[in-house]
This record gives sequence, C-alpha cells and structure tokens, in this order.
Amino acid sequence: MIVCKFGGTSVANAEQIKKVANIIKSNPQRRIVAVSAPGKRFGDDIKVTDLLIDLADAVLKNGNVHEKLNNVVNRYREITDELGLDYTICEVIAADLSERVSSDKSKVELFIDNIKASGEDNNAKLIAAYFNSIGLKAKYISPKDLLVVNDLPERTYALPEAYENLKFLADTKEIIVFPGFFGYTKEGILRTFDRGGSDITGSILAAAVKADLYENFTDVDSVFSANPKVINQPVEIREITYREMRELSYAGFSVFHDEALMPVFKLGIPVNIKNTNNPTAPGTRIVPTRTTTPGRPVTGISADNGFSILYVQKYLMNREIGFGRKLLQIIEEEYISFEHTPSGVDDISVIIRSNQLTPESEERIVKRVKEELHADDVHFNHGFSMISIVGEGMRNNTGLAARACAAISNTGANIEMINQGSSEVSLVFGVLQKYENQILRALYDEFFATVTTC
Amino acid sequence: MIVCKFGGTSVANAEQIKKVANIIKSNPQRRIVAVSAPGKRFGDDIKVTDLLIDLADAVLKNGNVHEKLNNVVNRYREITDELGLDYTICEVIAADLSERVSSDKSKVELFIDNIKASGEDNNAKLIAAYFNSIGLKAKYISPKDLLVVNDLPERTYALPEAYENLKFLADTKEIIVFPGFFGYTKEGILRTFDRGGSDITGSILAAAVKADLYENFTDVDSVFSANPKVINQPVEIREITYREMRELSYAGFSVFHDEALMPVFKLGIPVNIKNTNNPTAPGTRIVPTRTTTPGRPVTGISADNGFSILYVQKYLMNREIGFGRKLLQIIEEEYISFEHTPSGVDDISVIIRSNQLTPESEERIVKRVKEELHADDVHFNHGFSMISIVGEGMRNNTGLAARACAAISNTGANIEMINQGSSEVSLVFGVLQKYENQILRALYDEFFATVTTC
Repeated sequence: MIVCKFGGTSVANAEQIKKVANIIKSNPQRRIVAVSAPGKRFGDDIKVTDLLIDLADAVLKNGNVHEKLNNVVNRYREITDELGLDYTICEVIAADLSERVSSDKSKVELFIDNIKASGEDNNAKLIAAYFNSIGLKAKYISPKDLLVVNDLPERTYALPEAYENLKFLADTKEIIVFPGFFGYTKEGILRTFDRGGSDITGSILAAAVKADLYENFTDVDSVFSANPKVINQPVEIREITYREMRELSYAGFSVFHDEALMPVFKLGIPVNIKNTNNPTAPGTRIVPTRTTTPGRPVTGISADNGFSILYVQKYLMNREIGFGRKLLQIIEEEYISFEHTPSGVDDISVIIRSNQLTPESEERIVKRVKEELHADDVHFNHGFSMISIVGEGMRNNTGLAARACAAISNTGANIEMINQGSSEVSLVFGVLQKYENQILRALYDEFFATVTTC
Repeated sequence: MIVCKFGGTSVANAEQIKKVANIIKSNPQRRIVAVSAPGKRFGDDIKVTDLLIDLADAVLKNGNVHEKLNNVVNRYREITDELGLDYTICEVIAADLSERVSSDKSKVELFIDNIKASGEDNNAKLIAAYFNSIGLKAKYISPKDLLVVNDLPERTYALPEAYENLKFLADTKEIIVFPGFFGYTKEGILRTFDRGGSDITGSILAAAVKADLYENFTDVDSVFSANPKVINQPVEIREITYREMRELSYAGFSVFHDEALMPVFKLGIPVNIKNTNNPTAPGTRIVPTRTTTPGRPVTGISADNGFSILYVQKYLMNREIGFGRKLLQIIEEEYISFEHTPSGVDDISVIIRSNQLTPESEERIVKRVKEELHADDVHFNHGFSMISIVGEGMRNNTGLAARACAAISNTGANIEMINQGSSEVSLVFGVLQKYENQILRALYDEFFATVTTC
C-alpha cells in the first residue's frame, strides 16, 4: 500500500487536481491521499492559506470579513467550476468557513489555527467529491478523534494513540482523502503542525497503516545534489539514505522540515519524492539503507551561512574534567543550541547559528565563561558558512578528505574548521561566508563534474 | 635573572655536577638553581629516588633498613669523594636520613614522600657545599616555610603565598641552591609534586622572582619535531610557543608534565630547554609568542595511541537543546575526561583515552545514554591513535589540510576523524592504531623532509 501526499502546487487548480486523480488511478496501490490547501498557480498568485490568514486577521480586527471570506470561497468555486462539479461542495465549504469565523476567539493562536486549517480540510472534501464524480470511489476523512495531538503550549505532535486510531484506514475500500497540516487534541481543539505540516500528516498516515511506500508529490522532478541557484543543472539524486538526507538538511538543503519524516523513519518506510507534473519520472527515493551502488562516493553537498563561533581558550583545559560540559551548560541556559564543538588541547570552539545570538546574550556568555570557567580567552566571531559534503560512500574512501581540502584551498579560501565524526557520512567545513558559493562550486566540480578516479 | 633547573642525569655524579658549576659560573645571570636527586649514570643504574623507595619499603616492612640506608648514603659519599669535599656533608645527609626513617608512619603516603624527597633535598645541600668549595658563593635553601603547598587529599600544588614567600630569593647575594620536587604544608608536612616535580619547582621559583628566563637543563640538545624512535633524526625545534607545546604534549610529545610550566606561562616567562652535556647548543626555547619566522608552517607532529570512541546516534539530535551537554554529563559522572567531540547532524562521537574505561563503565555509559537520552545507536570502538600536526604557522596556510589528508590517504589508511578547531594551531586526525607509525612518517616527510612550495 502506498500513501501519497500532494503539496500546494499539486492541488492548486482543477488542472492539477486532474493530474492527481490520474496519478491515483494509475496505480491501485495508492490508497491514501493527504492533501495540502490550494497553493500558487503562478508566480504572483496568493495561496489559499494566505487568504485565510487575511480572513482571520479581518475577523480579529473587525475588518471586511465578508470580502475576505468570499476571496477564499471563490478559489474553491473556480476549481469546482473547472472540475465540472455542482456547487453543493462550495456550499459546504462556505458554511464551514462561516462557522469557523464565528468560533471561539479567546485564544487567538487557536482561532487562527482553526481558520488556516480549513484550507486543507475543505480541499480534501472537494478532492474526495471530485474523485467520486469521476468514478474513483473516495472518502473524505476528518482528523477529528483520529489524528490526536498534544495540548498547548508545546509544539504540536501526534500522540501515540493517533497511530492506533488511524490503523483502520488500511482496510477501507474507498480511496481515503485526508487533509494535511492539522490534528485535534483529546478535547477536540484543532492544532496545526509546524511548517511543512502536510508532509508530517502523510508521514503519520504512512506509519499508521504501515505503508510499503510514502510518495511525496511536489513540483520538482527530484532532489538535487547541490543548490541549483549556485550550481548550473546539478546532478539529480535518485536514491538517498535517511542519514544522508539529515546531514544535508542541516546546511540549507531544505527538502523536508526536520521532523516531517520521523514517523516513517522509525519504521524504515521508504519515501519517494515525485513530481505531480511529471509522474513517470523516477524522482528521489529516501531509503533506510542504500539499495543501489552509486557511481560516486558523495551524494550531495550543501552550504548554509549565518554561523558564529564561540572560541574559548584555557591553559590546561584538557586536565579539567567537566570543562566542556560546563561550557555547554552555560550555552544551554541561554536556550541556545549548537552545531559542532571542535577542540584542541587547550581550546574549544562552539559553532552556533547566529540568529540565536544577541549582543546581550553574547556578553552574558562571555562573562560567565570568563568568570565561572576562568578561561584565558573567550570571544565570538561571526560571518561563517558551513559546507557539508555528504555520502554513505565516503566511509571507506581514503582520498576524499584530501580532495575536498585541496578543492577548497585552490579557491584561496582558508579552512576555519573541519569536522568529521566517526560516522564518516559527512565532512563539514567551516569557512568565511564570502567564500561560500565559490567553494560550493569548487567542491561540486571536484566530486560531480570531473571524472573520478576512485 | 635566570632560574636554572637541573634534572636527574645532570646531577647524577661528580662529573655532571662539575658541569653544572661551570654552567652557573659562565653566566652571572644564573642566580637560582633547582636540582633533582642524583639520576642514572648509565643505562642499568638505579636512581637515588628508587633507592629511597626501596628504603621506605624496607622500613615499612621491617626489612634490612641499615643496608638500604647505606645504599643511599654511599651514592652521596661517592659523589663527595670525587668532588674532593670532606665527609661533613655526608654525615649531615646520614643524620637527616636516619631522622626521616624514624619519623611518623601513621600516614604511609606522607612517610614515603618524606623519604623520597630527601633525594633532592640532600643533593641540594651537597651541591651548595660543592659550589662554596670552589669559591662560588652559594646557599642551600629549604622549601620549609617558603614553598607552601595545599593539604591532603588534593594533588599537591603551590599556594599563592608560596610566590610571596620566595620573592626575596631575587635579592640574595649567594647563588641559591633549592631542592626540587617538594614543598611543605602550612602545618609543616612535607608533600611531593606529581611526576616531573623538579620542573614545577624551577617554574615556581622563576615565577616568584619574575625571572627573565627559566633554563631547564636535561640531557638532550633540544626538543624534536617528531618522535625520534619513529623518525630517523627528526628536525630539532629551536623555538616553540606555549600553545604549540601544549598541543603537542597532548599526543605523547612528553617534554614536560602538563602542569610544570603553568607558573611561568602565566607570567609569560620564556623557557629554554638545554643540554647539561652541551651547554653552548642553543636548545629549544618555549616562548609566549614567536620571535623568529620559521621556514615551515608546521612546528611538530605528535602521535599517541590508546584512544576509544564513543559513538552516539539519534534521529533529530540537533533539534534537542542540551543533548551534547547531557551526554558529557554522563561521562563526567564516571569521572572520565574526553579529548574531542566531533559531530554530524544526528551523531556525536566522544574521543576518550581508553585507560579511563572499563567494561563495566562502558556498559553503564551505553545503558544510560540509551535510556536517558533515547539514542538510536550507542557503542564504543577501540584501538585508535590521534595524530596532531601543530604549528602557529598553520593559521593562514590554506593548502595545509589538503597536504596532510593526501599524505595520510597515500598510506592507504582511512581517516576516522578530523578535528580542526577555530584556533588553527593544530589539526588532529583519528586513525586506526596500526597505521600510526606509517602515518607519522608520511606526515613528517610531507612537512619536514620535502621541499615545501608554500
């Protein structure tokens, strides 16, 4: 059984929704469909989710609610028209929206969640109606009482019972159309997931029914081995392991939101990223362990900027049990997470995303490290990029680090930091931000564009 | 003013002590002399310190105390003979030893300390007597009431007042001969320093009198850039910074005990390692900042084995604030110190000296990391070496990492770990132990033996 998820551009208008129907029809294994709200149809278009945020705003500020509500309903009406459906579904959607607009506003955050989630919810109803109209037996299923999530104030996540509740979807005879992006607490309060929330819904459904495959339909043929904004027509990745994807996602290789794949990862369910507009293309498969032997040791190279380095030096540091731990504790007490901690004998650096720092927090950290850890030198440096070379094939490739270092040094850039863990799936270089694109190109040339000799 | 320290082989017999006198005479700046106990005169010889341990053992086990005591006194008698001194000093030494033998044995550790320290103490008396006999005005000074140390049970270190107490030595008209290796608590209890203790004494004296230079006399011309047991006639180091020396000492480059230079380091006093047997050779200078420009970016390469790697993997690890800190806390609670913590996005490795681990402590750590941190994979690997390339000149040498990686990969060995901090004074490679010597040779060839192009 396959669980499919269709992103916003894949369900943005009638033409796209027809493609979705054809995709579902073309493989009887595709039994469960998670859908997003209608996305952009062209560059300057406004997504339904943004229209809904506008609506919620109007309601809360006593603005022109009627107009804003019509903007939303009209998008669905247009789709309904073009799909040749009767307006019954639009009436259902309009009524649903009106009800949400007059719902409880005592918790603004929850009110906005409720309005926003209608985008996916009503699109799922519409798509189910369309499927049935063309003879594809389908059923809209609400997350209510099924996809149970935790209470406020923690970030939204599915409770273990959600997986139990959703199991039965494996045995229904109709195609299931399920709205992405939200669930309900045990008390019936609607809560939305973090960004990329429809990906999570699809992932939860795939895990609940123990799917053989989770197909994630979007608008690109596959994941690229490097940022196509910097590298001209980078190599497409056919197969990538979960670990490789995680290592790449670290440095700006935004395929999925971090947590989106957690449910399928835990069960080892493979994921296939595919293009709704070119469904016969193989796409990119994300797998627990590699099934094919790639022609090269490196799977992808990612780069991300906006990093700072906290440098701490103290004579005889390495004789002090607990020094590293105390340093990390001080950082933790500022609610700051860190990326790497390269160290010498008497110094340790902590690589931190700069957006977590303020002049005040930096000052507090420097002061505490000086006073509490009696460090000889403590200071922050800013403006670094991290460049990750990732590939399971790097594990036993002796010359790879040398090739990477040589490629970087040929650009004239200095290597500020090298980090290679014992996992050997990734090699991370810290460099000055201004060299980032130049180095990315040099590394891409070294590992993808040239004939490799190993 | 120069403070000199002479090690065991430099004061092992009359011939050596005459060399010491000549060294002192040849430069009027040399005003304070810290001395060790007489060391080995030839390969199979027994050091006085070991004879003293034998004596202490015989006293505690009711063995042949008379014979053991004579073994010690005879060594001094032999020296006295050859120096042409009268036996008064030997009587002083014999009486001192007898008094120590009958001293309080309620704390065995302190009793042994008291016997052992007589080696340095009596040698200082003897050397002062010799100096005076040849017209070099000298004065033995006991550490008592001057070099004040902390109380048990902590490791011995000098209290701040020791530096105050010893200041006056700068203004005495005689050459000061001061025994190395021990101090006294405020209550007058003798305590010895850790191994390399005479180095610490010299260092404390140099700091107390704010010396211009601390000369450390031993039996080699200088410090080598790599282990001469592995590399044939390695390049001698003329000048090395404190930081370089620290980075090298990490991996088996045993010049000084870690803490020995702390007092002079704090004041930025340069150290000169020199050879008693070839005092006109320049030796190796340890300096706060480099005064000469070396011809190569690398100052030294050291290698050390016996490392283990704790590998921890957890999906989404990098989203968890506090993960690294909690991991280090578990290790700290086993009283284990660590060397490096290279990390990927979802994994972190902790490099630990294997001699700190037992099967039981490994099991406890693995269990706690699994249970408390919910890690997906936790295990130990053993049998690693760490190889450090060190040099202040590496800071702005872009191609250096590439050259090092290439040299290692040409040996066929895999690089298990690379660690370069933001300090850039060192580059550390983790490799399998069996490749250690081969890699050390390859790196030495790369950075010292070949003509460098940068």
